[in-house]
Amino acid sequence: MAKKIGKYTLRMNNPPSVIAGAAIGSKKEGEGPLSAYFDIINPDSSFGEKTWEKAESRLQKDTINKMLEKAGIASVEVDAVFGGDLLNQCVGTTFGMREIGIPLFGLFSACATFAEAMALAALLVDADTLAQAAIIASSHFCSAERQFRFPLEYGGQRPPSSQWTATAAGAALIGTHVQPPYIKHVTIGIIEDLGVTDANNMGAAMAPSAAATLTHFFSDTGTNADNYDLILSGDLGAVGSELLYQLMERGGYDIRKKHADCGLMIFDRDRQDVHAGASGAGCAAAVFCAYILPSMREGKLKNLLFIPTGALLSPTTVQQGESIPCICHLIHLADSPEPAGV
Amino acid sequence: MAKKIGKYTLRMNNPPSVIAGAAIGSKKEGEGPLSAYFDIINPDSSFGEKTWEKAESRLQKDTINKMLEKAGIASVEVDAVFGGDLLNQCVGTTFGMREIGIPLFGLFSACATFAEAMALAALLVDADTLAQAAIIASSHFCSAERQFRFPLEYGGQRPPSSQWTATAAGAALIGTHVQPPYIKHVTIGIIEDLGVTDANNMGAAMAPSAAATLTHFFSDTGTNADNYDLILSGDLGAVGSELLYQLMERGGYDIRKKHADCGLMIFDRDRQDVHAGASGAGCAAAVFCAYILPSMREGKLKNLLFIPTGALLSPTTVQQGESIPCICHLIHLADSPEPAGV
Repeated sequence: MAKKIGKYTLRMNNPPSVIAGAAIGSKKEGEGPLSAYFDIINPDSSFGEKTWEKAESRLQKDTINKMLEKAGIASVEVDAVFGGDLLNQCVGTTFGMREIGIPLFGLFSACATFAEAMALAALLVDADTLAQAAIIASSHFCSAERQFRFPLEYGGQRPPSSQWTATAAGAALIGTHVQPPYIKHVTIGIIEDLGVTDANNMGAAMAPSAAATLTHFFSDTGTNADNYDLILSGDLGAVGSELLYQLMERGGYDIRKKHADCGLMIFDRDRQDVHAGASGAGCAAAVFCAYILPSMREGKLKNLLFIPTGALLSPTTVQQGESIPCICHLIHLADSPEPAGV
Repeated sequence: MAKKIGKYTLRMNNPPSVIAGAAIGSKKEGEGPLSAYFDIINPDSSFGEKTWEKAESRLQKDTINKMLEKAGIASVEVDAVFGGDLLNQCVGTTFGMREIGIPLFGLFSACATFAEAMALAALLVDADTLAQAAIIASSHFCSAERQFRFPLEYGGQRPPSSQWTATAAGAALIGTHVQPPYIKHVTIGIIEDLGVTDANNMGAAMAPSAAATLTHFFSDTGTNADNYDLILSGDLGAVGSELLYQLMERGGYDIRKKHADCGLMIFDRDRQDVHAGASGAGCAAAVFCAYILPSMREGKLKNLLFIPTGALLSPTTVQQGESIPCICHLIHLADSPEPAGV
């Protein structure tokens, strides 16, 4: 079983493997740089459903089924599913998983939900409690805009710091190690809130949580950015990424040359009108499953820190003048299950 | 570590203990039959805050701090907190845990959240991955009414099948076994949806999920109601409890004499105007921490099945005509960590 090392990090004893993954996106994701890596690009963002919320549930259902198909297993062979999304009462997941028949652990860490799911699945597979577990997270531009900002019909203006919620889902299967990538460490986040109140500047709100969790991990493992191929944040976007560099520099860590952000990968900011980048629980999930997982499988990436961040606000807390508590969970994945080389 | 027995149930190898618990309620809970068992009854349901959502966050913060005080430990000694609530984006928990400084696993299983938290904490303590973990869940009548039904000022009529959301929170500490109760099995729920669409009749919607999970557990362990002192559902209320009996009878199980419901315990339906009983994620959490935990500690209850249910709907899904998917997680607690006597 995993054991605590240092103050915040859990090291796997028998690192579980990400056995399979699948990602589905919609029209805008299909026009982006990662288009060819998605399993399915469905240009109809309603996914054949009558409402945006039903569309997101359908997206989750289709994505987990695609993942199970790729893994070559039936849903009854999966011990549990860990999943969540951004919608009120996580209905993207609860309705999306309604017919799947797998025991469900519902999660909420906003856009860090996929990492929370991966951490819990890995810990319980490493403990030999679960043989294999599915993980899933999604977001949908239209359901998120209506819920968090304005209905699309309103035509609200978006400031330059705002990010574009990806219409995407990623699902993966975590099981006993058979092939790379292996999940070697997880660091569970503590809520960070430096007082940012602008709900159109999530990157700035979330950067301190990424810095805190990354610093906890570096400190617990005695490593730094030089030890890794890539430090992949979830959706800090252009504004949040720059703030993360500055916060890490204050602590003596230079991560600029090793950092990328899923929110800056899924869309092309020069060609696509997304302002500061992408966001949404489905962004990190889909980029991981579509692009990162195959890259690790093929050996192009060998040692990765995956650090999705979540802004734990609601429209109500924003209206009540509250600042934005944020959280970041870290997953360390490597090409070998061996303890050497951290 | 816990191991799967049968199809759905996980049996602990080294059953973790519920080391400490605390519960806080408000005015109506203070007028109910369990009043004397609460650690704190704060008759001011605003808990000194300016909005109902902030009040619920404050309730969570006060409850976890009271629990840590009773356990005699500092928050830094707790490896993780597993928590959730009913509010959009779980802000009762994210704002309530903002200053606690413990790694947070955010959860959502509606009114079954406390059981999901207890299951995950127990599985990871049993695996020796976490030394001790806190769990918490809450609900607040005023924040729930505004979010799920109508603002209080509207004065909406409540049908007889409706339940009254408890303004309450329960927090507990799960750790290596030292004293009863011990967590011996958990059965994680699969979503059940028999097509109930009436959001004012949650008991009817949730009863099938309780029946499914309880049947899975009985089948996996080869036991029945006779083996237990008490089968305690979360908040089926009067309507849902009767439906649960009927559904279990169809499967050949008679649970009538062994069953109680937290939603029928926290208020007195004859004296208090709560219609079909109480509900809310805080109902099962508070009844467990205030009343059940001490009863088990004192040996009055020896063998308990705790089966909170959650209705995984949102106001949006109701408006869109969707039925109500529900889930029930089961926790088996006993006075001895020994495997005998299931």
